[in-house]
Amino acid sequence: MAFELTEDLIEQIENFIEVGDNASILELLNEVHHADIAEILDEVTTEEATYLVKLLDSETTSEALMELDEDYREEILDNLSPQEIADELNELDTDDAVDFLSELNEDIQRQVIDAIEDEQHAQDIIEMLRYDEDSAGGLMAKELVRVRETWTVAGCVRKMRAQAQNVTRVHSVYVVDKNDHLIGRLSLKDLLTAEAKSKISDIYIPNVDSVNVHDTAEDVARIMQKYDLEAVPVVNDSGVLLGRVTVDDILDFIRDEADEDYRMAAGISQVVEADDNLLKLTRARLPWLMIGMFGGLSAASIITGFNSIFETFPKLLVFVPLIQATAGNVGVQSSAIVVQGLANDSLKGNIVSRLLKECALALINGVSIATVVLIISHFFFGTTYLESISIGIAIIAVIILAALIGTFIPIILDKKGIDPAVATGPFITTSNDVFGILTYFLIAKLILGF
Amino acid sequence: MAFELTEDLIEQIENFIEVGDNASILELLNEVHHADIAEILDEVTTEEATYLVKLLDSETTSEALMELDEDYREEILDNLSPQEIADELNELDTDDAVDFLSELNEDIQRQVIDAIEDEQHAQDIIEMLRYDEDSAGGLMAKELVRVRETWTVAGCVRKMRAQAQNVTRVHSVYVVDKNDHLIGRLSLKDLLTAEAKSKISDIYIPNVDSVNVHDTAEDVARIMQKYDLEAVPVVNDSGVLLGRVTVDDILDFIRDEADEDYRMAAGISQVVEADDNLLKLTRARLPWLMIGMFGGLSAASIITGFNSIFETFPKLLVFVPLIQATAGNVGVQSSAIVVQGLANDSLKGNIVSRLLKECALALINGVSIATVVLIISHFFFGTTYLESISIGIAIIAVIILAALIGTFIPIILDKKGIDPAVATGPFITTSNDVFGILTYFLIAKLILGF
Repeated sequence: MAFELTEDLIEQIENFIEVGDNASILELLNEVHHADIAEILDEVTTEEATYLVKLLDSETTSEALMELDEDYREEILDNLSPQEIADELNELDTDDAVDFLSELNEDIQRQVIDAIEDEQHAQDIIEMLRYDEDSAGGLMAKELVRVRETWTVAGCVRKMRAQAQNVTRVHSVYVVDKNDHLIGRLSLKDLLTAEAKSKISDIYIPNVDSVNVHDTAEDVARIMQKYDLEAVPVVNDSGVLLGRVTVDDILDFIRDEADEDYRMAAGISQVVEADDNLLKLTRARLPWLMIGMFGGLSAASIITGFNSIFETFPKLLVFVPLIQATAGNVGVQSSAIVVQGLANDSLKGNIVSRLLKECALALINGVSIATVVLIISHFFFGTTYLESISIGIAIIAVIILAALIGTFIPIILDKKGIDPAVATGPFITTSNDVFGILTYFLIAKLILGF
Repeated sequence: MAFELTEDLIEQIENFIEVGDNASILELLNEVHHADIAEILDEVTTEEATYLVKLLDSETTSEALMELDEDYREEILDNLSPQEIADELNELDTDDAVDFLSELNEDIQRQVIDAIEDEQHAQDIIEMLRYDEDSAGGLMAKELVRVRETWTVAGCVRKMRAQAQNVTRVHSVYVVDKNDHLIGRLSLKDLLTAEAKSKISDIYIPNVDSVNVHDTAEDVARIMQKYDLEAVPVVNDSGVLLGRVTVDDILDFIRDEADEDYRMAAGISQVVEADDNLLKLTRARLPWLMIGMFGGLSAASIITGFNSIFETFPKLLVFVPLIQATAGNVGVQSSAIVVQGLANDSLKGNIVSRLLKECALALINGVSIATVVLIISHFFFGTTYLESISIGIAIIAVIILAALIGTFIPIILDKKGIDPAVATGPFITTSNDVFGILTYFLIAKLILGF
């Protein structure tokens, strides 16, 4: 943890770049971790970053580029020749290389692939560009250590040494038959403790978890989490070993999913950061404010529709914000619990029992809040008994309604293959607001008869 | 992925338990993964689960118990003797054993620790119970492979074999000096390729990331993610190697944090699941509905305070839901972006420029929405020009106000050491609602003069 990014360091680097003192830069950044190099690239101008990428060795800069924000990486890549980009790709595992490449336009993609020296690496990348980004195929890397069941331990160690050169980290050793079908795995522990002359077929573990190349990223994440796997082999439909997905890719995926759910709940429609430009931020935020606006205008129509209330029971109008807030809050709570239950696969039991439970819960919350409001409205706001009772009953009804909408919309969305987290977004909150206000006035009309 | 949990299987197991046919159960569940055993335990009654835990071997059931919901695990443990619990703990890594143990009351804790056979394991567990749950010490496990710099590769492999017996998975091999100070790490790759007679001091990598035992879990997670580490060694203040944190613990931690932020944004105050009982769900949900209720009552007071509006400009009242929804939505959006920025450490630049940017963004969104509302209110709701203009200006003001509150509250909370995600919860949303409505009527009063 010795490295710390200071303004002094950045200034020093910028000065060296200005005078072209490459030797000092190389000395300064020698042995600095690629994640730290990425932070430096983030702090300097695009031109300076390009200068550094060209100067430093590709082994470091390729990994550093992977850490950068997509847009910024593109800006830097625009300043590099296809050959220079190919040099960076040479140093990356196939999965990262593909992520990298898929951001470029097809024309440059072709030029870059042509410029990659390692034929096999280029072939692998072309193959992987075919897979859907959010599938096991899109997440996997081709780099892995594979051994044949017929080898001896000694021969295996010899061949593994050669293969290990191309693999950044050896997570697992996979055992294949002569047709490259995955048949098991080998623990490094067993390999350390086995006799040199033993056959691999005698010591390998035949029980190996694997995923299909077309499995979704969600499925891969679920399996890896459930079984605490650090890497999982990927096979095609006939069981041939194609690659492996490692836990760090899944970590990124899980974080992205969580961020997306969070953004959805907050009414932000795109991946944005506080430091993005105004146009991007507006595009992410305005659409969902517009949904809220149309909800607000619908509510205005409803209130206008009950216009006799203005003369007969004007006091009912002051409780509209209370009704709206309650409907919105209950709906989001209910949805969030269901969305998390769906995400963790922990939602069990049948629909009817869930319905009864949600109603019971809403009744408890509803009666509690209605009682407080009934008393406060009568004694502090001077509403009549009948008005207070209308408000109280409306609150209970609104809470039950919002809880049911909040619970079942995500379940229905999920059954239809739509991300249920959408339900925690402004669309449902807005609907809840509007239904809540409508329910409030309908119940008041029924009881008070205006 | 061959295993699938079916109702038939559960029924079969329950029948075997009823007739006490242990042999059939053992045969059926032989070689089933502990994560799957956990799912089975989840489906049967507590008594049946206890029966299975006692019957199956502790190596499987201890890991399966770790996967269960805390409350349910406690119920099962209540049916086991201290000796039986100790047998389960014997099979777990120290970090899991400590999690397990910390749920029991102190009396039983002592009895269980006394019953643990392995003295060293018991010592380690007692040591670890001292550390804060959310610190590196609380996350780490004592099980790791450590080698001395003075050893030869051949000697090292021999000693590693012995150590590896106690370590579920070998992530890294750590190199220590004679006082157990961490001085580097050894890659298994290098060990595979080194000469048997080389000294460890010649081949180890001296540059090793480590964390202090008192570092917070957040810091550990950030470092492991930044440097893509699968395991990180934990040292005390004088650099002595104490244990290691692995990526799966961090994965759980990251998921829990994301879930917590999400719950906070949705107004749920505790860890709850859809399947929890009514009391627990009510306790998690009612408090934040109450906050919303008090906000709604405050809004009611504000409207009552502007009571002349009922006679002079009643049409303004129908737009209250619109104002409230807009204020709430803008506030949550702003907070969510800042909260994510703080979580990812991507929030840069000074306060003043952030303030100007947030104002500019609010102005764009505000003018867009105000224009639409101004036109619709005049032509569809028949408000006068002056009324429409008041509404439009109020919307712009409300959006700017909500955006500023939403942006700065999380920044201030973060500076004060409070989780900024609180700002996306009902408390701030409610404040935004109330301030929004107050601003609306104040501006209308200023322009229309009632």
